[in-house]
Amino acid sequence: MNKILILGAGQLARMMELAGTPLNLDIKALDVSSNKVVQPLSPENIYGDLEAGIKNADVITAEFEHIAHDILAECEQSGKLYPTSNAIKIGGDRRLEKALLESCNAANAKHYFVNAKIDFDKAIEHLSLPIIFKTALEGYDGKGQWRLKSAADAEVIWQDMANFLAASKTTVKQGIVAEQMVPFDREVSLVGVRRVNGDVAVYPLTENHHTNGILSVSVAAPVNEQLQQQASTVFKALSDELDYVGVMAIEFFQVGDQLLVNEIAPRVHNSGHWTQQGADTCQFENHLRAICDLPLGSTALIRPTAMVNIIGEDTVSNEVLAIPSATIHWYNKGKRVGRKMGHINVSGESELQLAQRLQHLADILCKEAFPDLNDFAKNYLDKQS
Amino acid sequence: MNKILILGAGQLARMMELAGTPLNLDIKALDVSSNKVVQPLSPENIYGDLEAGIKNADVITAEFEHIAHDILAECEQSGKLYPTSNAIKIGGDRRLEKALLESCNAANAKHYFVNAKIDFDKAIEHLSLPIIFKTALEGYDGKGQWRLKSAADAEVIWQDMANFLAASKTTVKQGIVAEQMVPFDREVSLVGVRRVNGDVAVYPLTENHHTNGILSVSVAAPVNEQLQQQASTVFKALSDELDYVGVMAIEFFQVGDQLLVNEIAPRVHNSGHWTQQGADTCQFENHLRAICDLPLGSTALIRPTAMVNIIGEDTVSNEVLAIPSATIHWYNKGKRVGRKMGHINVSGESELQLAQRLQHLADILCKEAFPDLNDFAKNYLDKQS
Repeated sequence: MNKILILGAGQLARMMELAGTPLNLDIKALDVSSNKVVQPLSPENIYGDLEAGIKNADVITAEFEHIAHDILAECEQSGKLYPTSNAIKIGGDRRLEKALLESCNAANAKHYFVNAKIDFDKAIEHLSLPIIFKTALEGYDGKGQWRLKSAADAEVIWQDMANFLAASKTTVKQGIVAEQMVPFDREVSLVGVRRVNGDVAVYPLTENHHTNGILSVSVAAPVNEQLQQQASTVFKALSDELDYVGVMAIEFFQVGDQLLVNEIAPRVHNSGHWTQQGADTCQFENHLRAICDLPLGSTALIRPTAMVNIIGEDTVSNEVLAIPSATIHWYNKGKRVGRKMGHINVSGESELQLAQRLQHLADILCKEAFPDLNDFAKNYLDKQS
Repeated sequence: MNKILILGAGQLARMMELAGTPLNLDIKALDVSSNKVVQPLSPENIYGDLEAGIKNADVITAEFEHIAHDILAECEQSGKLYPTSNAIKIGGDRRLEKALLESCNAANAKHYFVNAKIDFDKAIEHLSLPIIFKTALEGYDGKGQWRLKSAADAEVIWQDMANFLAASKTTVKQGIVAEQMVPFDREVSLVGVRRVNGDVAVYPLTENHHTNGILSVSVAAPVNEQLQQQASTVFKALSDELDYVGVMAIEFFQVGDQLLVNEIAPRVHNSGHWTQQGADTCQFENHLRAICDLPLGSTALIRPTAMVNIIGEDTVSNEVLAIPSATIHWYNKGKRVGRKMGHINVSGESELQLAQRLQHLADILCKEAFPDLNDFAKNYLDKQS
């Protein structure tokens, strides 16, 4: 059980190779754009096509949920795919995701499926404004969304949405999920892992901040036990229902003392990157352990740790490296506006020390490239003092 | 400054690639047995010969000190080699090492150089029994050593040593260094790093235990400040004298409150492997930062951490993975008696918790493969209780 094929050859596959190599796991990845199997750390090294990759692998997994269904079927047929294609598809289709949440009684925002004008009108009737409309397929990081705040805008938004649906060329039929917008206090996520034998381990809840719809900062620190318990219960219910194997992330809206599931990612997740420095075992290693049926590693927090995404930039000041505990993780990707290029993990003995180091980091980093970091750090520091 | 060539393609190069990749450093290594440049993590990927490797690199460094002098000369001529060939050679020749220690007034065991019978007799006269004789070149992990405990054995030992010298085919003339054996209390080592601009950072002193002459366990925990200061002073003196760039390790004998230098390793060192989990920045990353002239990373201890070498075995029980904080690092090498195959790092919130986890580890691991671990763990646990 030591040859792994990952569907997708991006930064998540890269970090799995880094985490799996010390365990003598041999990690290859399918570059879905070329249909070639490559080494994630050195994609110039090619190891054949998908068929050869499936044949050569002991275990197959995925780093993203938007994978062509015929590829998933082929992998599943080999008997080596973890998690199941069903679980992966749920992460890629909001309709399936909502159905799963309902079947597990997992609290989530009131919603309505929209395929035609009549559904659109019913959604507005059924839910109250403001409503957020999200594409069922392929939408993430804030793409493919419409916000309806006033009834007067309904017609314009529907026209845009209808054009979008008509133009859609997805293999699976595209659709829209209308969701009651939730006036949440904050966004948190739970990264957890489930092994073939049903063992489950979850990391502490992480607080997440977004900028322009993209995750910018995640903070892991000692958490409120009641919230952690709530999130763990949801994780257990969903992962058992799916007979899930591997790491799965659940994003929540926190409203008062209650957590509502926002979405599910059937894979290692950006809001779990802090585990590389902040947890006993990082999410990448735990995903690999789970799919190889090895004992799960401790998910305990070592010390308060934050992750700051580097978006659209391929350099940061070297001064960052001088901040104690600051660790830069570059993904070796070409520079592009809005693209996740890397991240920085920072830890502290206490949340106060972490906040001070984040403030120091915000002072060093370019304000244009990290627009909200300074405000975030300032608020976080104020809260600790 | 992001293409690195490492002379030597063993586990230290491998761990440098793992540590350097997140910094977007491109790491290649010279396999000295084939004279080919390879990727340390996937040595089947070949990138030409030494000449091409030198040309392509921004910076060249070494993972071991026993490198042919013509290769060192060629690398040095390129102006890219860190540390200098002089520093690397000192690590590979006990005569040069002793001369450096003397020139820096670094306390070390009384010694005498032996090339012929007359020197051997003078060594016995000059030093008192017991004496340890070590080959000047190539000896490490307890190989190439003779112990003279009683004058009656002198003739037999000399004959053996004379035969050894006569048979020696080293390019540089082989020799023997006779050393007064030191009745030390324990062995400790200091791993430190020096940047091109002269900045220095040192890790906490590590306590080391050997089995059959090979390092078996290293423990890093909060240390006696006076000892740490003594070791740091020696590190500063030696590294400044050498205008050293990169990580260097100094092994000491502790006798009462005094540290005597045993030997110097001009490279990342086995007794620094705990830094992968136990320090803000690991030794591999700090070595790369130093040679790339990047700011040094904090060397602070995160929590008490131990490293256990896996010697001659290519598997351990999967139960090890269930010990919280236990991290296995395999080197992907063929199994051979006495060979360093991997290591396990274990941490604890306190030394007591670390000791308990080490005891748990010793209970799981096979007694034949880890002969002294149980005694070590038991003693360590007793000391904490």
